[in-house]
Amino acid sequence: MLQLDLPKTLEWVGSDDQGFLRLIDQTLLPHQVEYLDCKDSETVCDAIARLAVRGAPAIGCAGAYAVALWALRDWAGDDAHAFFAALEARAVEIANVRPTAVNLSWAVNECMQVARQAKADGAGVDQLRATLLEKAHEITADDIRRCEAIGKNGAAAFADLAKKLGRPLRVETHCNAGSLATAYFGTALSVIYHAHAAGDIEMVWADETRPVDQGARLTAWELMQAGVDCTLICDNMAGSLMAAGKVDAVVVGADRVCANGDFANKIGTYPLAVMAQHHGVPFFVAAPLSTFDFALASGDQIVIEERNPQEVRCAPVAKGVWQPIAPDGVKVFNPAFDVSPAALATGGIITEEGIRNY
Amino acid sequence: MLQLDLPKTLEWVGSDDQGFLRLIDQTLLPHQVEYLDCKDSETVCDAIARLAVRGAPAIGCAGAYAVALWALRDWAGDDAHAFFAALEARAVEIANVRPTAVNLSWAVNECMQVARQAKADGAGVDQLRATLLEKAHEITADDIRRCEAIGKNGAAAFADLAKKLGRPLRVETHCNAGSLATAYFGTALSVIYHAHAAGDIEMVWADETRPVDQGARLTAWELMQAGVDCTLICDNMAGSLMAAGKVDAVVVGADRVCANGDFANKIGTYPLAVMAQHHGVPFFVAAPLSTFDFALASGDQIVIEERNPQEVRCAPVAKGVWQPIAPDGVKVFNPAFDVSPAALATGGIITEEGIRNY
Repeated sequence: MLQLDLPKTLEWVGSDDQGFLRLIDQTLLPHQVEYLDCKDSETVCDAIARLAVRGAPAIGCAGAYAVALWALRDWAGDDAHAFFAALEARAVEIANVRPTAVNLSWAVNECMQVARQAKADGAGVDQLRATLLEKAHEITADDIRRCEAIGKNGAAAFADLAKKLGRPLRVETHCNAGSLATAYFGTALSVIYHAHAAGDIEMVWADETRPVDQGARLTAWELMQAGVDCTLICDNMAGSLMAAGKVDAVVVGADRVCANGDFANKIGTYPLAVMAQHHGVPFFVAAPLSTFDFALASGDQIVIEERNPQEVRCAPVAKGVWQPIAPDGVKVFNPAFDVSPAALATGGIITEEGIRNY
Repeated sequence: MLQLDLPKTLEWVGSDDQGFLRLIDQTLLPHQVEYLDCKDSETVCDAIARLAVRGAPAIGCAGAYAVALWALRDWAGDDAHAFFAALEARAVEIANVRPTAVNLSWAVNECMQVARQAKADGAGVDQLRATLLEKAHEITADDIRRCEAIGKNGAAAFADLAKKLGRPLRVETHCNAGSLATAYFGTALSVIYHAHAAGDIEMVWADETRPVDQGARLTAWELMQAGVDCTLICDNMAGSLMAAGKVDAVVVGADRVCANGDFANKIGTYPLAVMAQHHGVPFFVAAPLSTFDFALASGDQIVIEERNPQEVRCAPVAKGVWQPIAPDGVKVFNPAFDVSPAALATGGIITEEGIRNY
């Protein structure tokens, strides 16, 4: 497995019974790298709530560890019935820390299913504790495997492109679909890391990604740490870079992919995809199959969430403080993401099972 | 003449011999509205240098008043030869406060030409003083007239569009081509003010315009002051607004227009123009004829100036303080403007003498 020169986004430290969950506190990036050692479920929930850990897959893993930590540390008794009743209640609380994060409730449900099965099979409290921690490890390992497979599949496509051009690629990315959003490899950045290891990446253009600046704060930091040459740009600079022939490919993540291949991702993805098409630059989406929602026929059915107007009125300076730029009380439109038609993913949608073309 | 409910960007206050130049200190906008009363040339030069007054036409007017204030206040003697030698030296200093601002050296030269003519005609010091102040008033009045004509020509085109759609328009703009960049009306915003007065504007989408955020800091403030309904967006949100049919037209200013109609403007204009074309949204450029450079055949010949990387690494919070967002020392690409092919100005280029189509 490819080793990244990056601190781990999340990691179980120590033995199964004495260990704890260590998280990078992402609210302090890129100015400080500090770790949160979570020795009970409340510390994990608090980290999820205040975005110290973010990114759907990473939140799922953290949620599973929160359930395990509750069982290992927060609950002291050894009566299996009392334990289980309290566990069911606590699981609901954990799943609701960020109610819109599908991966969080999904991971907590996965944990509860194995716990219910174990209980039905007559497991005692200690056995349930071990089962829950094992499931959290498994969810995390599964995320790493899937992201690795996405990275390898995407890197194969990038290798073809680099061969065609006869040189390594200059690749643009938007937002942070990186290690910091998952257990280890990321999705879009997994493609970049694997292609970089193969010598097929010259450098990466990182969009700053207004209004929350995940590109400036997280992607630029992550790529610099990992030793991938990276240049930060404002979102509105991609057009002239492409016109000047300085972008060979774009790769982004996705929040949701519809049955017809339409995809929702961080605001700014759609104009980037239109610009890429206009300039003949291949545009790739990297997304695990868990991101696909076959119940949604097309992108028209995706409801666009609007976020706090203060994100646009302000800028996120050090330590998560938002400082005002615009006039007090100015009206704002702040959609969290946009929807692109499948046809704009001209390079295809890279999954752990291969690349899908629409 | 249309009266705007706006403080004047720059204004001569008081009598010709006792008066002074009053400027809005734009470094404090939008959080504070404070005026700089400039009673000597050094105060004006300092205001130009630290961007308290900005925008090519406004800098030109301020530069002309700086020359006049030197003559009226800084120079005490009444020997015409000594006066003129010192004036020539001071004019060079004033013109060089921002060497790349063409309007500044143009305006100072205009002043010097009338002064030289007056001197050749035998004028004394007091007469030269009066001539220089009169020229500064004239340059300012000329800017106001040209911007007014641009506004009226553009508003006529907007009236046609509103009639075709059967309702007032939702118009997007980028950067600040407004009152704050000129003596009074602005260029792109003059079109909006005149169309608004005619009832043809429903609301304006103001792009924040990273990295210097002129849209968030200046355009949003100016439109709110002037009573034009305005919603602030991040630059990367225009695409999904257009896809949703929420933008009826775009109007922007220009830094330079080439002989073939290619135009350079604030970074982010080109992707906005591509998006507008992709969605069939008419795209207008508003620019006085002084912006046209017929010596440049096409946009390929325009050299793109790169600015301080700190602008991208940081955000401009209150009182002109730049606070870091991105990692220290991250590489940055920061072009000040981009170039769009003439064909993207689908609505035409609005000048004081009518609309040019390419």
